[in-house]
Amino acid sequence: MSTDTAYQHIWWDGDAVGLLDQRLLPNQETSVRCTSVAEVAHAITSMQVRGAPAIGCTAAYGMALAAQQPADTSAALLAQLESAKATLDASRPTAVNLAWATERMLRTAHTHASASPADLRDLLLNEAHAIMAEDLAMCHAIGEYGMDLIPARGQVLTHCNAGGLATAGLGTALAPIRLAHERGRAMHVFVDETRPFLQGARLTAWELQRAGVPLTLITDSMAAYFMRQGAIDCVIVGADRVVANGDVANKIGTYGLAVLARAHGIPFYVAAPSSTID
Amino acid sequence: MSTDTAYQHIWWDGDAVGLLDQRLLPNQETSVRCTSVAEVAHAITSMQVRGAPAIGCTAAYGMALAAQQPADTSAALLAQLESAKATLDASRPTAVNLAWATERMLRTAHTHASASPADLRDLLLNEAHAIMAEDLAMCHAIGEYGMDLIPARGQVLTHCNAGGLATAGLGTALAPIRLAHERGRAMHVFVDETRPFLQGARLTAWELQRAGVPLTLITDSMAAYFMRQGAIDCVIVGADRVVANGDVANKIGTYGLAVLARAHGIPFYVAAPSSTID
Repeated sequence: MSTDTAYQHIWWDGDAVGLLDQRLLPNQETSVRCTSVAEVAHAITSMQVRGAPAIGCTAAYGMALAAQQPADTSAALLAQLESAKATLDASRPTAVNLAWATERMLRTAHTHASASPADLRDLLLNEAHAIMAEDLAMCHAIGEYGMDLIPARGQVLTHCNAGGLATAGLGTALAPIRLAHERGRAMHVFVDETRPFLQGARLTAWELQRAGVPLTLITDSMAAYFMRQGAIDCVIVGADRVVANGDVANKIGTYGLAVLARAHGIPFYVAAPSSTID
Repeated sequence: MSTDTAYQHIWWDGDAVGLLDQRLLPNQETSVRCTSVAEVAHAITSMQVRGAPAIGCTAAYGMALAAQQPADTSAALLAQLESAKATLDASRPTAVNLAWATERMLRTAHTHASASPADLRDLLLNEAHAIMAEDLAMCHAIGEYGMDLIPARGQVLTHCNAGGLATAGLGTALAPIRLAHERGRAMHVFVDETRPFLQGARLTAWELQRAGVPLTLITDSMAAYFMRQGAIDCVIVGADRVVANGDVANKIGTYGLAVLARAHGIPFYVAAPSSTID
């Protein structure tokens, strides 16, 4: 599905949802095949898939999967979808994109409640594909908006993984970096390892290496040292959730980086799609 | 030698230097026996022993060990000591206590250059014991000076390991905590895990648990979050080196914590003995 990554990590697999198991990266590139809503929810809970937009796309396919289960009537199918939404929503309460995606899928079903079960199945699968395609386009748009924020030969710090693996496309925080790199701009990325789960060391470093972007992997506690040395031109992070007053929820460590960036006069950017905003 | 710890971690072993292997804590309490200056230097280089004051004590015993090697004349013994000092000093250039201790041992030998080799051996072993005893007293003094800086029911953040394992006694940063706890004051310690080598998770947490001090182990990146929550009353760290203008060199992450503490109006203390000052 994704055309922006050299790897496929969320896809519709005929009668299942396919996922690249992100827990095993970078050492193993192993995929999982979820044939039930419960398995999709488990993939989210166990972090086989993570990253707010990627979870939204996965949950949309989870809803499409629920629609594939046998149902004699459209009403029965709608009931299956309601149940699937509850299961999926509970799998990761902090990622607002998840409920956003399941809600959109359910709304699509309700809008076409008079359609036959077979037509509803097609409609829902198309809606999930649309959510993926929009996510891909969203990443590109973030990249286009954001790339000029990175100065020439800029040194960018990022935390956690807000890259292609966290979305359907180029990522959120990594989209400006990836696009600028593709267009030949020189830059260097400092990647926080992101304890305790090491998303930076395992996922962001893996992605940037595959894309050929020069990087330095650092422990979370080294960021302030490099800021002080003048080695960081800007910080770009993703977001799990942006609430109505503008406050951002993101991986532990993000707040500390923001305080440190302010203390050193370094611009701090949050790159997120509208689906991440309450 | 140490009377302040429930464990022995640097000791004179007749004709060798005994060390608790700090690389294997907390899973294994295994000791190493260094029978040559080269083995002592290796123990320092490989971080079997670490912590600036502890390295100073170890190096002093390393010099005592050099004095035990056969020598027909005192002049020959002095030459052995000069050579030992060069080997030991090169094993960890950042810990100023190391060169301080080896210099003091060498000065003792020169002061008594007319003594017999046998007398010089005794003098140097006694000097090493004296350095250990002074270190122990120094820890107590830091504890006494520092304990009143911790408020009642105070929540203290510390980074890396500046505890008993890093000294001969109660530690430097941990001395005020340990003494206050021994005297019945309630407190709680937040321990940074201290990537990449995990001295906080492996050593500080182990020490505080043995001493019965309540603690919470956090990733380095969580410190700012707890500061923001009002959960940290003060930060106390040790130092590898304090230079003449007052600048402090310490484990990576210390500078960032200091900036974060200032941003949150939290007192930040460096606990170090005079041997750590240039």
